[in-house]
Amino acid sequence: MIIMKTDATEEDILRVVTVVEESGLRAAVIRGEYQTVVGPVGDERKIDFDRISTFPGVKEAERVEAPYKLISKEYARFFGEPGAHRTVAIGKIHLGNGEPVIMAGPCAVESRQQIMRIGEEVKRAGAHILRGGIFKPRSSVHAFQGVGSSSMQDAEEALHWLKAAGDAFDMPIVTEVRGESMVDLVARYVDIMHIGARNMYDQDLLVEVARKGKPVLLKRHFGASIEELLSFSEYIAAEGNKDIILCERGIVPVGKGKSYTRYTLDLAAIPVIHNETYLPVIVDPSHGTGRQDLIFDMSCAAIAAGADGLMIESHYNPAEALVDGPQMVTPDELKEIVDACRMLYRTRRMAAHTRRE
Amino acid sequence: MIIMKTDATEEDILRVVTVVEESGLRAAVIRGEYQTVVGPVGDERKIDFDRISTFPGVKEAERVEAPYKLISKEYARFFGEPGAHRTVAIGKIHLGNGEPVIMAGPCAVESRQQIMRIGEEVKRAGAHILRGGIFKPRSSVHAFQGVGSSSMQDAEEALHWLKAAGDAFDMPIVTEVRGESMVDLVARYVDIMHIGARNMYDQDLLVEVARKGKPVLLKRHFGASIEELLSFSEYIAAEGNKDIILCERGIVPVGKGKSYTRYTLDLAAIPVIHNETYLPVIVDPSHGTGRQDLIFDMSCAAIAAGADGLMIESHYNPAEALVDGPQMVTPDELKEIVDACRMLYRTRRMAAHTRRE
Amino acid sequence: MIIMKTDATEEDILRVVTVVEESGLRAAVIRGEYQTVVGPVGDERKIDFDRISTFPGVKEAERVEAPYKLISKEYARFFGEPGAHRTVAIGKIHLGNGEPVIMAGPCAVESRQQIMRIGEEVKRAGAHILRGGIFKPRSSVHAFQGVGSSSMQDAEEALHWLKAAGDAFDMPIVTEVRGESMVDLVARYVDIMHIGARNMYDQDLLVEVARKGKPVLLKRHFGASIEELLSFSEYIAAEGNKDIILCERGIVPVGKGKSYTRYTLDLAAIPVIHNETYLPVIVDPSHGTGRQDLIFDMSCAAIAAGADGLMIESHYNPAEALVDGPQMVTPDELKEIVDACRMLYRTRRMAAHTRRE
Amino acid sequence: MIIMKTDATEEDILRVVTVVEESGLRAAVIRGEYQTVVGPVGDERKIDFDRISTFPGVKEAERVEAPYKLISKEYARFFGEPGAHRTVAIGKIHLGNGEPVIMAGPCAVESRQQIMRIGEEVKRAGAHILRGGIFKPRSSVHAFQGVGSSSMQDAEEALHWLKAAGDAFDMPIVTEVRGESMVDLVARYVDIMHIGARNMYDQDLLVEVARKGKPVLLKRHFGASIEELLSFSEYIAAEGNKDIILCERGIVPVGKGKSYTRYTLDLAAIPVIHNETYLPVIVDPSHGTGRQDLIFDMSCAAIAAGADGLMIESHYNPAEALVDGPQMVTPDELKEIVDACRMLYRTRRMAAHTRRE
Repeated sequence: MIIMKTDATEEDILRVVTVVEESGLRAAVIRGEYQTVVGPVGDERKIDFDRISTFPGVKEAERVEAPYKLISKEYARFFGEPGAHRTVAIGKIHLGNGEPVIMAGPCAVESRQQIMRIGEEVKRAGAHILRGGIFKPRSSVHAFQGVGSSSMQDAEEALHWLKAAGDAFDMPIVTEVRGESMVDLVARYVDIMHIGARNMYDQDLLVEVARKGKPVLLKRHFGASIEELLSFSEYIAAEGNKDIILCERGIVPVGKGKSYTRYTLDLAAIPVIHNETYLPVIVDPSHGTGRQDLIFDMSCAAIAAGADGLMIESHYNPAEALVDGPQMVTPDELKEIVDACRMLYRTRRMAAHTRRE
Repeated sequence: MIIMKTDATEEDILRVVTVVEESGLRAAVIRGEYQTVVGPVGDERKIDFDRISTFPGVKEAERVEAPYKLISKEYARFFGEPGAHRTVAIGKIHLGNGEPVIMAGPCAVESRQQIMRIGEEVKRAGAHILRGGIFKPRSSVHAFQGVGSSSMQDAEEALHWLKAAGDAFDMPIVTEVRGESMVDLVARYVDIMHIGARNMYDQDLLVEVARKGKPVLLKRHFGASIEELLSFSEYIAAEGNKDIILCERGIVPVGKGKSYTRYTLDLAAIPVIHNETYLPVIVDPSHGTGRQDLIFDMSCAAIAAGADGLMIESHYNPAEALVDGPQMVTPDELKEIVDACRMLYRTRRMAAHTRRE
Repeated sequence: MIIMKTDATEEDILRVVTVVEESGLRAAVIRGEYQTVVGPVGDERKIDFDRISTFPGVKEAERVEAPYKLISKEYARFFGEPGAHRTVAIGKIHLGNGEPVIMAGPCAVESRQQIMRIGEEVKRAGAHILRGGIFKPRSSVHAFQGVGSSSMQDAEEALHWLKAAGDAFDMPIVTEVRGESMVDLVARYVDIMHIGARNMYDQDLLVEVARKGKPVLLKRHFGASIEELLSFSEYIAAEGNKDIILCERGIVPVGKGKSYTRYTLDLAAIPVIHNETYLPVIVDPSHGTGRQDLIFDMSCAAIAAGADGLMIESHYNPAEALVDGPQMVTPDELKEIVDACRMLYRTRRMAAHTRRE
Repeated sequence: MIIMKTDATEEDILRVVTVVEESGLRAAVIRGEYQTVVGPVGDERKIDFDRISTFPGVKEAERVEAPYKLISKEYARFFGEPGAHRTVAIGKIHLGNGEPVIMAGPCAVESRQQIMRIGEEVKRAGAHILRGGIFKPRSSVHAFQGVGSSSMQDAEEALHWLKAAGDAFDMPIVTEVRGESMVDLVARYVDIMHIGARNMYDQDLLVEVARKGKPVLLKRHFGASIEELLSFSEYIAAEGNKDIILCERGIVPVGKGKSYTRYTLDLAAIPVIHNETYLPVIVDPSHGTGRQDLIFDMSCAAIAAGADGLMIESHYNPAEALVDGPQMVTPDELKEIVDACRMLYRTRRMAAHTRRE
């Protein structure tokens, strides 16, 4: 990390960038309010920080060992970030600052009618953002893969439906991107680019998505430690995109015998991520439990633990959904969840406020 | 499971018991308000249920495959249990029915003065029950094992201190039992017998403790599935003791790299256990995270998920504690947690109430 | 799965394919020696198997629930596969039939000289196939990502080096593919396309790679069950490519405290995969343990458990390697491992032979 | 750890012991061939090592942070242990020095006839030590708990049977001890005291068993790291009993979907334990896989990885066994396994020998 003096000239900055690039790395130039920082991306061992620290206009130059620093609260000040929390703007919605943001919709978009009807109903239930899968990464090649998986045209048509529903009911939209070849297409339609848990480790996809400049929702892989989630979100930040929303959606269950849930929701990830980074974090209780009857309780718990929002699968008739029926709530149930979460959020804020006085 | 008719005579019951015992099993006789049930404990394959079902006074006799049935909501009616939740009475405290019950105190009892001072302070902070370890099961034989580990006399002296502190500040007391030889001694002093996570699988200890007839707090082993926790609590119920309090305290973390917490708190265990059984369930965020700075958030989350109580380690000066300093909160912090949890509990109750109308 | 009669005409087959495609699925036509099978790829619930079973030339038509069937030993006969094991031919090497195949080389290709020297030395040590990473998927964006990660030209240059080393010492080559955009380039150079553990769930990459028609080495993700590994390898088979080599390379360690290894090598995966499928399976003890001093023992164990080969990282001077130094063996150590494995393989074959007589 | 000078007097030793005991710890006095070491057991922070180091006859006095040191290869020389491996003598059998030792027998002893017949058959198959469970710790209280679980008399009768079978066919016997109250009884009959995986964390049981002075077989808990296994075996060593045999029997599987095995056998534990300690380590492929058809391959793998022995469940008719039928091999299969393991052991020894020259 190379921190420039407040009076460093463009020439000074260029000199540093050139040396970084000559070492075979890329130089991320982050211009904060008061100072500019040059963050090398790549193998930092190749850079002679001692030499760079003697350059004109350079205040400090040192190798930082942490696997993440661009998203880190500790280094935030160097990168012109507010010390505390970052708010990600998605249209009129501000995620990370205030009331919990609810993303809701079906697991999979199935038809124009289906997503229109669900859009209307989840909006009425209190959702802020409409979700819906166009590509469904499934374990079995012999299972339904999403309406967008057959061809580029099908994918675009489904994106049209999703966008129409979002527009009709005044909600930004979010969908999972799968495969680098689909990134351009998806970016033209959606407001949030969602990278699924199975693709958390796919650095190429992360980089391609980040470059679109839209907010990115990155889900924690079910076999990943929190440190790994943060390290991989740094791939997005290194492209200059810090509109990153992290999402806890459960990790692999441990132990012999029945766990009664598909995954283990690790809610301590919420305060841990808030301690480590300035990024907002949401929770997906639908995939995290796989059970419709646990969504209410786990949504309440997530908000009480400080989550900035929720992603919940909802369908007017879960039984007829092509995917994930057992974990979808009806819009009526969604409304109860949203109402409870709002009340709990206010109670928590009041309690936390009293606590700090 | 053999369900007797409402007009079955004592002779009818004795006949069934005799046949069960002749098959080499023990017969747990549970007398409900309306009917009596004989639950065989042991290898049920040895019992001829068809034959027993023809005996006078027998209504139904069948083999139940579930690893737990005495604690199961599904079978509750046969055993004279209320269908929903069971309340465990500990002196004036009713755990499982109403406001969250807070158990607090130091990880280890160190001296009379220490436990007296902590007792006073946690009571003032809002705790209902005083905890304190006399025996500390440690991974290393070369670490402090608790003041009670040296001799029976030392153990009794420490139990005296703990009881004196409980009496002085009007709180029931709870302590972990370790080793069958200590069960009698501990039972003479404490109000709740606590079986630690490492001993969850120790059936002999479970049986010995259960027989004392006092409420039992059973912690989930950190490598155990929920099904295993329930199967092992059935060992307690099979002794006729249903005053069982289950405790989620974290499972082994998964994944490479830092998890930032000692264990992963599985809060979905709360609604799952409430669905499966009529037993109350509490959460221990101190061991579950191992970090003082996460206790507030995870306590809030546990209560929002429906926990019946919390067990929290607290010390006036965590830094000088012999064990677990990094995970203990001060009484002042405890008060903030208790206050927040009360508010969240009421909010949740209100929301859940609205939901069901 | 639709099994055609032995005398089915091309017209009969086309009729079935058309109906499958009209249902929105793709039809994989597998022509065995005696019969042809049409395997629908996609959501099989959309297909009316009852109707198809009445078509001329159709012998059987039924939905198979298993997440993998094309690679399954159970269904092998329908797809013209030998019942037992499949041999994958890589040049003159036959993997899956006879002596264990050794893939060896550095973690990362660093220069022409480096890979040339290592190629020569591992060949002398007994390796059959040369490995070397061009793209290194790293957890930290701030770590060395492989010489091929900077640009397409750099990647091609490194592939040139690797191929030159393979040619010079008469070894086929294998390298990890990362990112769909690199598939074409890599396929032009290498003999085996290697999909890394982190990308096991990336169906798009699997499909792209499979279509190149070259043997594919698929590593088990460190959070994946064996069932998942098999389900995802079915994505490759569904493209008509059955030259699949599965690789066990360790799963996430469980438990508090030191595990002393980076991952837990699950060697029971070898006989399990041999029971379930006809595919060959190799083991990577380098990543599976992360420790140079355990490679010998775990290589021996893998061969004794029936592994068809090993992938071992080797470098003439592990200390100066840019990545994974602590887990690389020298060519001298590699020779000892190869020699021991050959002896153990023969002993095992002899023992197994005696066993079956 | 306090190391006495070679010419230290009994008085010097007693002085050190007294000071250790006055600090509230126990002093383990280990008399090696050349020097005596006093190992404090308990909270070492209470001891003033600086002061003790000035005592007459004291060579060195320092606090050792490692959770295990008495069993550690690193500290072996201080405790008069050979640097490399310890051989545990069980009658004429020497475990840890030479040919793999095979312990075999039924999961549960069911009758005199059953254990007699199995004893005869496993002996003929090549077993050295006869195993058989008297107490079966089961997850469900409603399942068969072993013939010894009903009463002390039943337990003693079953021990008689087991011993009679051992005597008849000239094999030492091993059985699991459960519950501190059974330790005395079991110690009167068996040659190896076996502590089951579920009880690995039960320090009280470990201490009681250790004091009997007989060889102890300690199984790794299925949720325990290797470090924990070693820390808990230190509880046995601290009682002055170093005839400890460690046993790997599988850890909890990770991942969604089928693992196809009950546990994951962590064979890397074998070389890791051999690196860290001088203790012998054996493997139990029966519990480790839960599948009869995997025992052969995993036994071969264990021996090839350097295991000092195997514990294998065997029954003349697995289908009629009351417990664990699916994981038991017949004596004929056992013979094939034993023969293969002997050959593999010799091959490995030859290969390792060549390697070190």
